[in-house]
This record gives sequence, structure tokens and C-alpha cells, in this order.
Amino acid sequence: MTDRDESTRDRAGRRLFLARGLAAGVGGLAAGGLAAAARAAPVAGAADASATPPAPPDTEPFWGVHQGGIATPTQLHTYFAAFDLTAKDRAQVEQLLRDWTQAAARMAAGHTAAPLGDDPMLPPSDSGEALGLPPARLTLTFGFGPGLFVKDGKDRYGLAARRPAALVDLPRFNGDQLQEARCGGDLSVQACADDPQVAFHAVRQLARIAYGVAEIRWVQTGFSGAPAGGGGGTPRNLMGFKDGTRNPRGPEFDRVVWVGEEGPAWMRNGSYLVARRIRISLEHWDRTETDFQEQVVGRHKMSGAPLGGKAEFDTPDFAATDKDGNPVIPEDAHIRLGAHETNGGAQMLRRAYAYNDGANVTAERWPPWRQGMMYDAGLFFLAYQKDPRAGFIRVFEQMAKLDALNQFTTHVGSAIFAIPPGAQPGGFIGQGLFVAA
Amino acid sequence: MTDRDESTRDRAGRRLFLARGLAAGVGGLAAGGLAAAARAAPVAGAADASATPPAPPDTEPFWGVHQGGIATPTQLHTYFAAFDLTAKDRAQVEQLLRDWTQAAARMAAGHTAAPLGDDPMLPPSDSGEALGLPPARLTLTFGFGPGLFVKDGKDRYGLAARRPAALVDLPRFNGDQLQEARCGGDLSVQACADDPQVAFHAVRQLARIAYGVAEIRWVQTGFSGAPAGGGGGTPRNLMGFKDGTRNPRGPEFDRVVWVGEEGPAWMRNGSYLVARRIRISLEHWDRTETDFQEQVVGRHKMSGAPLGGKAEFDTPDFAATDKDGNPVIPEDAHIRLGAHETNGGAQMLRRAYAYNDGANVTAERWPPWRQGMMYDAGLFFLAYQKDPRAGFIRVFEQMAKLDALNQFTTHVGSAIFAIPPGAQPGGFIGQGLFVAA
Repeated sequence: MTDRDESTRDRAGRRLFLARGLAAGVGGLAAGGLAAAARAAPVAGAADASATPPAPPDTEPFWGVHQGGIATPTQLHTYFAAFDLTAKDRAQVEQLLRDWTQAAARMAAGHTAAPLGDDPMLPPSDSGEALGLPPARLTLTFGFGPGLFVKDGKDRYGLAARRPAALVDLPRFNGDQLQEARCGGDLSVQACADDPQVAFHAVRQLARIAYGVAEIRWVQTGFSGAPAGGGGGTPRNLMGFKDGTRNPRGPEFDRVVWVGEEGPAWMRNGSYLVARRIRISLEHWDRTETDFQEQVVGRHKMSGAPLGGKAEFDTPDFAATDKDGNPVIPEDAHIRLGAHETNGGAQMLRRAYAYNDGANVTAERWPPWRQGMMYDAGLFFLAYQKDPRAGFIRVFEQMAKLDALNQFTTHVGSAIFAIPPGAQPGGFIGQGLFVAA
Repeated sequence: MTDRDESTRDRAGRRLFLARGLAAGVGGLAAGGLAAAARAAPVAGAADASATPPAPPDTEPFWGVHQGGIATPTQLHTYFAAFDLTAKDRAQVEQLLRDWTQAAARMAAGHTAAPLGDDPMLPPSDSGEALGLPPARLTLTFGFGPGLFVKDGKDRYGLAARRPAALVDLPRFNGDQLQEARCGGDLSVQACADDPQVAFHAVRQLARIAYGVAEIRWVQTGFSGAPAGGGGGTPRNLMGFKDGTRNPRGPEFDRVVWVGEEGPAWMRNGSYLVARRIRISLEHWDRTETDFQEQVVGRHKMSGAPLGGKAEFDTPDFAATDKDGNPVIPEDAHIRLGAHETNGGAQMLRRAYAYNDGANVTAERWPPWRQGMMYDAGLFFLAYQKDPRAGFIRVFEQMAKLDALNQFTTHVGSAIFAIPPGAQPGGFIGQGLFVAA
């Protein structure tokens, strides 16, 4: 990989940064200094981001019709952050989105969040841990939660009337064991990159820019089972099965994922994201027979082929029966209950990551299979669709009740966000919502 | 990268795995089945691991004079697990180490933990999430905590007399805020790989093999700021500074890291590991001035040069003073207090990773700088040395009291392990301890 590409202006900034002498005192930690420094990172104007030289090959475009990080081939890592807004008024929210857009465009191109300043008596405009790292295909995908429009019954920012009908409050699903601290959020940032430090760095800079306007509510890291460089086929999840085989592709992708004429104009070419943190009882799963695992999933573990099929991408035959008349793919198999064939055609893009948050003392919920130290690991499930009512909600209402996989999974976090379309240089993410058309 | 290389035997096993028909019933979840399955993964004999074909280029050797994962160029990811032993007797512990050694050798070469069986009525011998992934330079480094020798005053396994003098209980250091659930452990496994799923997979298989004999006590993930493929220079930590510049190299490395004649014979060519989970107050750090940060660390942020020097690898001049007679590198600067020059020559190998465990509600300890949602992120510090009394303990006694960096760091986890030497094919890790010389 190449070194982080920097514009001439940045290089000059870095030289100044380097060349400055040592100041006499240390100090600067007084409360006033902290307050003054809170938003000290100046955000570059649009010209900075749009006038940069050609990007290195591991760069994903930031500007475009759609936001990145949805159709983008899945990167190896994600760092996802949900924010609560503390902004006093709409102008502050709009300014935050303008600042975030500029910083995101710079970072996606492999730059610091803002040009590095030359004043050693100010906090650095970028925390610096991505210096020397490549862009690593960084994408930053911004979303608007219900709380941007209405929170606790209040129309805080005068946007309540513009809440899209598709941005529903998620219903309670059968089996939900949601933890409030892992749910919701007024704004979301999905950082995806092939390097975890690049993803972490990006969210950290955005959180800094948001000081006083929005604060982190919850975050989640994830990684993909795909080998670097792609070409490795469908990645395997932590249950050891290929995951995402039936994702929409080609023209079907566009039809399933992107908002068209049906939504408000400012959401056209956007999407809706449902995020679920799904803990998986890996210890229990690992003690089950291979045959049982395959009956639960409805696929062969090694090849990924649907039961009764030969190859991963064979269309599952949900009507097939064995010699005793039993369905080859069981009635409660995961792939049957998640299929568009059994959900009135409902589809979504699954862009899921594995998560691994260590281990902690846990008792399983039903039947009491096991208690003690267990992995806090599983699936950070991210589903994109043009309307969650006809996507995730439609499909999961059925799965939550019947899926055999539920014996091993517990949904502990949940959130929904409207994902506005992409922005053009000079504009900002969500501009259509804030600037009357 | 290449696909996971498999021996002919494995391929045949996988074909059988694929080809087997569907069994009629699901069942198999009765308590008896679980118990029977608990150690169902058969571990291959030594011949399996030593007779494999040439390894692909992203493979680190498992067998050798030293264990891997110490002198190995730092991989991008770690998954570290500390285990508590529940084994009834020494024979069980020895068998666990034999089994772990064989599984580790297989996995380091890119294979499953054990050959995949062909009986669908048994749990899979490998959970499968690394199928299709490259070896990713996987290393597995095993360690023995004080509890293997003596626990709660009991000599559980008849090994108390063989506890090395250097495997001390760590003293309480100034400022320690240790959480019991993140400390200690009778055995340790450090999995390092360039792919996080490969590292997770490896520990998961070892934990499975240990069912009934040892159980996870704590785990920690980490990532390195080094770009993939190396060549990016010293990685930066989450404070944005280059970290590890003064690590021992060449002959000095051997002198600092490996146990020689001074230890018990079974520890020769081994080392000692001190692990510390160091939470860093990144939000606070990000609000401090660049000049202040550099005074705290004692280095320039951009270049990594010591204050008063020009290039990263310049030897720090701790005697230099400015025109007012003040030291150029402050008295409480991190690099001064950690230097061998100020610690009677004490040295260690720092093989640290950044960690990012999300965010949670926190109040800082002194002065009350900040409370609210804060990153649970920082440094997973792994220090290797031939004697911790003349390495980490010697250095950190001074740093814990005086280091200016302590304003931003809190040690919340701690453990020490004796790292036995490597093994040869046919042998096992720790053989010298268990088999009387």
C-alpha cells in the first residue's frame, strides 16, 4: 500500500508543524483553555476537498449520487457510532453536517480531517494516529435517526413535518432483549475501512468536530471474514457459515436499496439502515452436530449450497421433500424464513460484520444451557433497503418468531436511520432536508 | 493472498464433510449429547503438523527455539486470552498443552485445528469461520501464570517448587485502578495475525479443546497502527505518537528478551510477559495543545524525533538544556522516565497494540476533567523481557509515580506470564516443565 497522499498545502502544514520551536511553558490546561480548544479544529472549505490530486488506488469516492459504504464492496473493518444531538437549534445541526461532510471528504481521500495548523499553542487539528496509513478504502456513511425529527414528543429542530414515513420506530420483535445503551441515536456514522485504525481515527475526528453539538451514544466495531484484496468469495460469519449469498445484485440491488420516487425528494437515492447487534452463543453452537447446524441454517456448511443443492449460488428449492415427505430445507430453517419467496418478495442488502467484544459473565436465556464466561461476540447486522417496512421489518417479524437460529442468537442492540443521498462538492450530506427545495 | 493451504488428508476430509447425506432427525441437544460433544474435536498427532507441505508466504513458523509472536514482526491484530485452570490433576494440564501445541501448529500453517471429520452426528472439529482465509501470519504464544504453580496457597499440580523466581506477583503500582476481571490467569494465549477473524478463530478452537480443563478468564483484542505489508515505519498509537522507537534490536534484542543461563533450564530461550490494559483519556488528550503533548511525551508528534533531535531514531539527549537552563526533554517526560538511561539499564520489548472496546459512561479520576460517554480505548501493552524484575517492574515503578502521561492513562488490567521456549515437532510447549529433565 502507498503512504497517505497529502496535498501540497497539507505537506506545508506538516512542515510548519514540525519546524515550530519549543514553547517555554507547559500549562494550557485551565478550564478556559479546554473550552476554547473544544472546537479548535478548523474545517476546510469545499475547495480543499474537491481540488485534491488524483486519489491512490485504495480510495473510495466520497462525492456522488449515493453515499459510500452501501454499494461499496465490504471493507474489512467497521467502526459505527450513534450520536445524540445536544445542538440548541437547527443552524447548529446544519453546520455540523457541513463540517462533517468536508472532514469526511478529506479523510476518505487519505488526508487529515483538517489541514494541520502551525500553532503549537492550539490542540492539533487532527489526532494523528492515521498519519502514514493509507486511505484503506475508507467510507463514511451518515444517517438520521428519528430523534433528529422528534425527540420525547418535541420538534426540537423544526423538522418534524419532514420525517419520512419510512423512518418508523422499529416495533418490538419476539425475543428482543434490547439494552437501551445500545439502541437508537439521532445521527449515525458508519466508518468502514480495510484498516481498523483508519476507521477509528475517522469517527474520532468527527466526534471532536461535534463537541458541544452532538455526543456519542453508542459505538460498535466489526470485522469481515473476507480476505483482504477481495476475490475470496462470500465471507463466513462466526457460526462458520457463508453469509450474504442471496444479497441483491445488479439491477435488483438498485431496486431493493435506493429510495426512488416514493420517498420525500430529499431522500431520493438514499436508503434506510437497520442496525442490530446480535449476540451469538458460540459456545453452545460449537457443541452442536454438523448436521444439526446445517438443518438450522438450511445450507451445507462447507460449500454454502442450500440443502438439496450442489453449489453456493443454487436457488434454494423450498418445495423439495425427501422420501418421507419431509421438507429438505426445514420449515424453521434460517434461509427459508429469510427468503423473499416466503416474505412476499421483501428484500434487503445485508452488509453485516462480525463483532468481538471480549467475554463476560453471562447466563443464557432459554433453556438454561450454560452460564459463566461467554464470548460477547456475534453479528453486527446492517441492513439497507428503500423502505424498512417492506424490508427488514417484514422479514424479521417472521424470523423472530420461527427461525431455528434464534436458539443461538439474541438481539441486544437496535437502531434505524434514514440514509440521505450522497453530496456533490460544495454541498453537504442531508442538504435537501435542511435547504428547502 | 492465497487460499488456505490444506493437506491432502484435509481435502479428503472436507469432501467427505460435504458429501455426507442428510440425517433424518435434528435432535442431539440433550444434556448427554452436549457433555459427550464437549471434547469431540480430535487433535492430530505430531505427524500431522510436521508432515504438511511447504507453507504459503504469509505463514510464520510455529516450531522453533523460541515461541512465535515475540520476535515476529508485529501483526495487525491480536486476540489475547487468559485462562483459569479447572483441571483436576497435572496429567490433564499436560494433555491440554500437548493438544494445544498440535492444534496451534496446524492453525499457524493455515489448517483447521484438527482434520475435519466425516460424521455429521458429531460437532464439527473446527468451527469453520477461517475456512478460505489465509494463514495471515498467525502466531500463538502460550504462557504460564503464577496460578499454574500456586493458587490460593495450594500447590494444585505439584509444580510449586518449579515456579521460576522471575515469575513474581506484580507489585501494586502507583495509580493502579485494576479490575479483578481483567487481571491474572493461569495460562495465556496470545494470538496475533494480520486478520482478526483468523486470530479469533484460533483462540476459539483452543478454548474448545480446553472445555472442562481450563476456561476463559479474560480476553482482549487489539490492533496495530502499522500499515499491512510492513515498511510503514514505527506505528502510531492512539495518542498519535510513534510508539516503540527505542525497542531493542539485533543482538540487544536477544540479550533483553530471552532467558539464558540464569533461569530454570526449562525456561531457557523463553521470556516473561507483562500485560497491561491501559485506558487512555483520548477526549482529554485531544483538547491539549500540540506543544503540551510533545512535552508530555518528550518527542515531536510528526517526526517522532526526541525533543532537541531531528530524526526519529536520534538518541535522546537527556542532559540538554535550553537557554534558561531548563531541560529540553522535561523531567517528567514519558521517554525520559521509560529510558534505560534513567532506569539502571533496564529494558524490555514493547509489543503493544491499540485497543478499542467502544465507549461507556465514565468519570475521570483526578481532577474531575470530564464525565459522560468516553471511549474505552487505549493501549494493550505487552512487554517481553528475560526478567520482569529488571524490566517492566523496574521501569514502571518510576513511571507510575512521575510520568506526565499518567494524567491521561489508567492501568485497569494486569497480568504476568512465564513464556516457555518453543517446541520441536513431536514435543509440546512447556514440555521441560512437565517432563523432568
